[in-house]
Amino acid sequence: MSDAKYRIHFEELEKFMKDVLIAKGCEEAVAARCAKVLIQADKQGMDTHGIQRLKTVYVDRIDAGQLYTKTGFDVIRETDTTAVVDGHNGMGHSVAMQAMQLAIDKAKKHGLGMVVIKNGTHYGIAGYYPQMASQQGMIGFSGCNARPSVCPCWSVEPKLGTNPLVFSFPSDEPFPYCLDCATSIVQRGKIEMYAREGKKCQPGWVCDRSGKVLTEAQPMLEAFQKGTAACYPLGGYGEEMGGHKGYGYTALVEILSSCLSGANFLSGCSGLKDGKKVPIELGQYFMAINIECFRPLKEFEKQVGDICRELRAAAKAPGAERIWTPGEKEYYTMLDRKEKGVFIPDVTRSEMETLRKDCKLDTKFPWDN
Amino acid sequence: MSDAKYRIHFEELEKFMKDVLIAKGCEEAVAARCAKVLIQADKQGMDTHGIQRLKTVYVDRIDAGQLYTKTGFDVIRETDTTAVVDGHNGMGHSVAMQAMQLAIDKAKKHGLGMVVIKNGTHYGIAGYYPQMASQQGMIGFSGCNARPSVCPCWSVEPKLGTNPLVFSFPSDEPFPYCLDCATSIVQRGKIEMYAREGKKCQPGWVCDRSGKVLTEAQPMLEAFQKGTAACYPLGGYGEEMGGHKGYGYTALVEILSSCLSGANFLSGCSGLKDGKKVPIELGQYFMAINIECFRPLKEFEKQVGDICRELRAAAKAPGAERIWTPGEKEYYTMLDRKEKGVFIPDVTRSEMETLRKDCKLDTKFPWDN
Repeated sequence: MSDAKYRIHFEELEKFMKDVLIAKGCEEAVAARCAKVLIQADKQGMDTHGIQRLKTVYVDRIDAGQLYTKTGFDVIRETDTTAVVDGHNGMGHSVAMQAMQLAIDKAKKHGLGMVVIKNGTHYGIAGYYPQMASQQGMIGFSGCNARPSVCPCWSVEPKLGTNPLVFSFPSDEPFPYCLDCATSIVQRGKIEMYAREGKKCQPGWVCDRSGKVLTEAQPMLEAFQKGTAACYPLGGYGEEMGGHKGYGYTALVEILSSCLSGANFLSGCSGLKDGKKVPIELGQYFMAINIECFRPLKEFEKQVGDICRELRAAAKAPGAERIWTPGEKEYYTMLDRKEKGVFIPDVTRSEMETLRKDCKLDTKFPWDN
Repeated sequence: MSDAKYRIHFEELEKFMKDVLIAKGCEEAVAARCAKVLIQADKQGMDTHGIQRLKTVYVDRIDAGQLYTKTGFDVIRETDTTAVVDGHNGMGHSVAMQAMQLAIDKAKKHGLGMVVIKNGTHYGIAGYYPQMASQQGMIGFSGCNARPSVCPCWSVEPKLGTNPLVFSFPSDEPFPYCLDCATSIVQRGKIEMYAREGKKCQPGWVCDRSGKVLTEAQPMLEAFQKGTAACYPLGGYGEEMGGHKGYGYTALVEILSSCLSGANFLSGCSGLKDGKKVPIELGQYFMAINIECFRPLKEFEKQVGDICRELRAAAKAPGAERIWTPGEKEYYTMLDRKEKGVFIPDVTRSEMETLRKDCKLDTKFPWDN
């Protein structure tokens, strides 16, 4: 393959991300947790949430004082089944991973567990955390709010985050049923990818303040910066195709993410105060359901597998290649990349080189010389 | 108002529905629970799920032997936070109401509660149950599977139910944030209404086996009967507008509803065996989250209210009258109908008269004589 030299293996890439975060001031265990979540995105093919964001989302926010490398795990309220954690704007992946594990531990003992975070920061792919639960024989459920970029139904103003609503279920197949997606039609990461690739966006994804549908990715991103563009919730504009439902899901994730912990919400998540960048202080929630309290795990896993197999065997639409179940594409991507490595686009290679230099690392990249 | 004589007050209508169910063989407490859920649909304006379905869904299924009036509440497995209930194909609303209350009671004591039902039957508006939780200061979450009518993404075959994913949150406003909707763009009840009113359906709601979009409501219903039509999940056909997301939500409700209890799933919920009508034996789940374990209830309610108020104050799209939050329209409809009563369309009046006669009731309807 001609692009082989721009591919990098999982272990090397994970180590580089960890080394950068240590160089920026993270403790080793914290950096290791963050790198584990980031590399999972690259493994699964969720390219908008791994190495491509290391500089632009995490390092740049650390440098801007919006994200703190000092990261503890501060439980401020707790019962047998519940906990509230103050994330103190530390590294989001690390706090989130510990919060999900706490929910799982509670569910192991008491059947159900739920942990919420306030003063949280960007935690990467939401699907990582429910998958921790499904790997431990549980149902996992998580979500978070985010910077305003989605308009309510009947509105043109970005108020809500792209708020993922994510579940993972263990199955008897080599991959879980894991649905990890934003409750908007698309999220900003996808538009960033379209901009990089010079692709035109689908009409109906994004509108401007006058309600006009936008399709050019680069001006769209600039409009997002100015707060004059908004993503439509799933179902699109108005009620005709169910936009009120998608909006309803986005808003319920906003509530679950922020109201139990007292985290910031809606315009409070802009990360700006008096024109200056400040921590975003968002909210996250994590729930674990102990399957064995209801039914033997093996029976549950078989039924999840049976459902997925029956769905995939449904009559195909004309022209459709095949039917997928959530979690399946990610699994096959991971198998493929395990062998070939992760492809690094030009702009990301250049960011990696900058980080290596700034952090004074002696990492060797496959494309060096 | 010229249609005033075809309107009936809540109490009269609820009593009539209860009397019919008692006459069909239900115990009084069971009939009372069913009527309470049914009238709530008529109060809230969810006209597809109240009196308009008393005959066609419940009485007809009782007569066909698909639904049993003998209704107990049989907990077959239980822990402090969880329970599995066998519904034995008894009256769905009654079993579901008791299951949700059990989940709430568990959450009151232990922070979280989750109850699942197997051998369940149609439980009316899914939103009733989470609202029981939010009325008791908790977050409520419920869903169920149903007869196959929704196709997976990239498919044309009805495999999934319209599977609602429903949350209710208490707020400081006179109504909760309650999102009660199917995970498909529309559900069959809406198409039935369009057929009655002779209205054309939106292209993109429903397709036939060749992938052709259907718009005529009556032929659409006939195609559903034959299993040759399917509703698209939220997001519509394919991935472009997020159909894979809506499909993912529909399927996760199928899993939550059936895999913890061992209820029927997908084509197993057809209610047909060797061409004969049999109980549908579907699954339902109910979860309660005790807010006070995380945060004082008043603070939670205020933040939910603040979120709803900020959403409603967002900039309106050109031509949009106003922005609503989920649960609000239902509340205003209830206030309006409390005074004016529920309007009963021709076909439903005739069904009510048939039921009155068959059940030998001496009920007086406002339109009598």
